[in-house]
Amino acid sequence: MKGSAFSEYSPQQVREIIRKGDYDLPTPGMAKGHVQANLVVLPKDWAYDFLVFAQRNPKPCPVLDVTEPGDPEPKIVAPGADIRTDIPKYRVWIDGQCVDEPKDILKYWRDDFVAFLLGCSFTFESALLDAKIPVRHIEKGSNVPMYITNIQCKPAGRLSGPMVVSMRPIPYNQVSTAVLSTGRFPAVHGAPIHIGNPEAIGIKNVNSPDFGDAVPIYDNEVPVFWACGVTPQAALMASKPPLAITHAPGHMFVADPKDSSYAVF
Amino acid sequence: MKGSAFSEYSPQQVREIIRKGDYDLPTPGMAKGHVQANLVVLPKDWAYDFLVFAQRNPKPCPVLDVTEPGDPEPKIVAPGADIRTDIPKYRVWIDGQCVDEPKDILKYWRDDFVAFLLGCSFTFESALLDAKIPVRHIEKGSNVPMYITNIQCKPAGRLSGPMVVSMRPIPYNQVSTAVLSTGRFPAVHGAPIHIGNPEAIGIKNVNSPDFGDAVPIYDNEVPVFWACGVTPQAALMASKPPLAITHAPGHMFVADPKDSSYAVF
Repeated sequence: MKGSAFSEYSPQQVREIIRKGDYDLPTPGMAKGHVQANLVVLPKDWAYDFLVFAQRNPKPCPVLDVTEPGDPEPKIVAPGADIRTDIPKYRVWIDGQCVDEPKDILKYWRDDFVAFLLGCSFTFESALLDAKIPVRHIEKGSNVPMYITNIQCKPAGRLSGPMVVSMRPIPYNQVSTAVLSTGRFPAVHGAPIHIGNPEAIGIKNVNSPDFGDAVPIYDNEVPVFWACGVTPQAALMASKPPLAITHAPGHMFVADPKDSSYAVF
Repeated sequence: MKGSAFSEYSPQQVREIIRKGDYDLPTPGMAKGHVQANLVVLPKDWAYDFLVFAQRNPKPCPVLDVTEPGDPEPKIVAPGADIRTDIPKYRVWIDGQCVDEPKDILKYWRDDFVAFLLGCSFTFESALLDAKIPVRHIEKGSNVPMYITNIQCKPAGRLSGPMVVSMRPIPYNQVSTAVLSTGRFPAVHGAPIHIGNPEAIGIKNVNSPDFGDAVPIYDNEVPVFWACGVTPQAALMASKPPLAITHAPGHMFVADPKDSSYAVF
């Protein structure tokens, strides 16, 4: 059963099903209208650098919640949840290398772990669809194409790296609407960081993404680029903390707030 | 000479005058159109708690820049500036008590100090004035009235406390415009947190503010309350770090970005 089969479930119900181990597929479509989030877990020793990195690079790193050290409950966005069990699939990174892809992280959890939940593009994609703007990779049932750019993030402590962006082809006469629709959500990547010419941000071949799947760009369309939640993970992997845990791509944390609660106008 | 005498100076010029010790008055009006910021300096040991507190309470605690430990240069908002000398008057707090009000903090500076610059209401007051909305305390030449509310901030580590708000009386037929004008600036307190009945947020007597000066509210006006940058200082003072340094009220840090650069729409 795909995520969309659980579209009418509450976030609490979805997390309970995942916690029991009854669901291990990607989460798009689950608890429709509620925010889904990227996960980064780090030892407290690294958490400060990560938080400053996020403050300096808010478009790719929109922090929605930070747990207390050792406490697996994200009290702001999902009271009662357990960050160790409520995601269908995790990735465990040692010295920047992925060493495990477990269904829970109970055996890895430590008293000094801090979990960060970061906004994800699913929120603004709902806004695009609401505005009748097509989202190509959803139409195709594929993953969004993502690219490493020549835009450098502002470094913080031990963390640095290039900004990663996602791309959606938008019909030229809907580009302004796409900017305004997604600009309403500054807490979840916000307005595009670039529109048009991919080379301007160091993307040599838009048909060959660094992550995700290529999508066709039709004649009347412009490639539009948004800051991507893969950026903080890429910076972490490049800076090689001794231990870090993330969600597996597409397997997000389903949180309580409605997407609409992050709109500023 | 008041701050307005320096309205056409650049932020760099203003900081140089202050750095030389040639100016020790409040900064409103200086380098008009550029962001002014609240300062909080803490030992690294407390900086993480403060950053999480700010993440959980973004309306009262809008972080614009965080310096590297020991480095007095706010590289994001004012490259070349020195946080130890470029503010006209500071306050030094030991165990939550103000013990000194120096013109620079060179002798207090330590290798483990982190400086936070936080957005200030001057930015959105410019937006109100641009929208032809009167700002009473500016008309009166007094300080904005501020109140301790019964709204609790979300605690973080050792930091907790009530939200402090500032109040501006707005003619009833301009309240919506005031909401929209200030809502454009989520990075500097944003839209009001309350409109109307002061008792609803625990303010017993609107004519008796906890900080600043009372202002008259005329018959056709509604009291409108915004999250206030005094909130993080109040939380710090309540939690009594061994050492903290802030700006003295009204004596802000004049940063490079234009106010308008923080608008989201």
